Amino acid sequence: MLAEVQKVLTMYTKREINRVFFVACGGSSSLMYASKYVMDRESKTIDSYLYSSNEFIHRNPRKLNEKSLVILCSHYGKTPETVEAARFARDKGAITVSLSFDINSPLAHASEYVIVYQDGQGKDYLNEAPAIMLELVFGLITAKEDNGKLKELVSSLKNLRPIIEREKGKSFEKAKEFAQSYKDEKVIYTLGSGANYGIAYWFAICLLMEMQWIHSHALHAGEYFHGPFEILDKDVPIIQLLGLDETRPLEERSLEFTQKYGDRIVVLDAKEFDLTGVEESVMGYIAPLVLQAVLRQYAEELAEARNHPLSTRRYMWKVPY
Amino acid sequence: MLAEVQKVLTMYTKREINRVFFVACGGSSSLMYASKYVMDRESKTIDSYLYSSNEFIHRNPRKLNEKSLVILCSHYGKTPETVEAARFARDKGAITVSLSFDINSPLAHASEYVIVYQDGQGKDYLNEAPAIMLELVFGLITAKEDNGKLKELVSSLKNLRPIIEREKGKSFEKAKEFAQSYKDEKVIYTLGSGANYGIAYWFAICLLMEMQWIHSHALHAGEYFHGPFEILDKDVPIIQLLGLDETRPLEERSLEFTQKYGDRIVVLDAKEFDLTGVEESVMGYIAPLVLQAVLRQYAEELAEARNHPLSTRRYMWKVPY
Repeated sequence: MLAEVQKVLTMYTKREINRVFFVACGGSSSLMYASKYVMDRESKTIDSYLYSSNEFIHRNPRKLNEKSLVILCSHYGKTPETVEAARFARDKGAITVSLSFDINSPLAHASEYVIVYQDGQGKDYLNEAPAIMLELVFGLITAKEDNGKLKELVSSLKNLRPIIEREKGKSFEKAKEFAQSYKDEKVIYTLGSGANYGIAYWFAICLLMEMQWIHSHALHAGEYFHGPFEILDKDVPIIQLLGLDETRPLEERSLEFTQKYGDRIVVLDAKEFDLTGVEESVMGYIAPLVLQAVLRQYAEELAEARNHPLSTRRYMWKVPY
Repeated sequence: MLAEVQKVLTMYTKREINRVFFVACGGSSSLMYASKYVMDRESKTIDSYLYSSNEFIHRNPRKLNEKSLVILCSHYGKTPETVEAARFARDKGAITVSLSFDINSPLAHASEYVIVYQDGQGKDYLNEAPAIMLELVFGLITAKEDNGKLKELVSSLKNLRPIIEREKGKSFEKAKEFAQSYKDEKVIYTLGSGANYGIAYWFAICLLMEMQWIHSHALHAGEYFHGPFEILDKDVPIIQLLGLDETRPLEERSLEFTQKYGDRIVVLDAKEFDLTGVEESVMGYIAPLVLQAVLRQYAEELAEARNHPLSTRRYMWKVPY
């Protein structure tokens, strides 16, 4: 575990914390959904909220105060709304913990605690942002309650790098087939629930909309049956995620329906992963991390097949907004 | 105020409540977003959560207990997941308050408190579901804290029916123009934030996807700039809602951007409404109710122009799911 994470875990034992606010934008926000799921399922006493940074500032939650822990994330640490959210939270007396790839970023300077994560350099997966997010919430519950899963979480995350590499290898051909089959689609939906929903959201808004200019929408697998499923036709493309958490029955149900009435469905099922080395007690929370890595490969192949690199932008970082 | 609502308000003064769970599916869930916004902004002590019914059951929030208030809603009171959620919550000892149009429905039978709302019969708007949702949360904050806005809320809601009718009349021609201009679109996005986001969500998943089979996605006006806005092109249709709550700057920002780079934007701005009779202190919370009524007219005209009645379904209530 990174020394900066350890420092936060030590801080937990000294300061009173009764609420956690997960605050970020876009892709950085999406990796916090699994942590919110952990807090909801595991914590007996600590409440949690998840907001896009600017919504957080303007909504101005009345319960935000010196007993609040605000966890923020921005890869380059320059997202203006998130930097402003850190300042806003500190003004309210809240404890701010920020994740960034850059120790010298504005977000790092604006925050009380800073964690510089690693990103795909082949090192220990324990030190990547999605892993650290889980360490921060299990660390909190361990410090404040009688939850004993932190140890199992850490040992599982330590084993994750080779698991992810192996699963990416296993799915490579499928990703290539997906790319060939779906490269001319104008709209592709994603579907998930529980700890997975953040991954469905990330793929829809960052990979498909932002990086591929393909219309998308992350449908919640339960809400699907209360409106969205009426859009389904033989030719509507849907990517269905199946995780290992307690909401899996929702994802199985939406899959069954889509398979019955649709012809264009792509399934990524965490049950097909070999997760040897991941403890049963935290498997549902860790499955989204593997799904994300595998799914990213689908986007990489799609970008290749469409001749539209993932780095293509028309507005982001290019025009004022 | 309905006697059943009064009864719940009296119950608030007798039972300990430290958390509210808003639990419903689809359209019924969407009308709870403004109430969650109220709880976040106004309540100093009571935490709140919003879940789709089946997610609520399977996520099984650990903090759900006898001090929890669970507010549920289903129009016909037959939504199986919501009925099951009421039973699940009661098993945990929580206080259940359900809104339904049918006093003899399974949801009514499964719940401790039942409120039968009116629906567009031209009577006092105070007794419609979106209004009752606001009465329930302001009533709670009034009972538990020193918030004094319930009285202003009720007097404002009492004045709402003629306001809504007038604004519908004023926007009728615009709705007809919208319908003619957008009837052949394959995808239409909606955009909103804060108390309005639920209306953007409702229009996307219920009106466009469910009732018109048009691809859609309710974009959060803040998240827009962190992925989704890259989809924008001259010919991408966007419906932008502008409310009167504290997150309005987010909506103004997304509008400005879309107007600069897009050519197909429809704006519904609550600032253009004559809200005489609505108190300033609750205006931001009530504006979504007017926006919803006006926006529904857009859907009605769209259905007419497309010769696709809003009642058309291929799966809902027709096939097993």
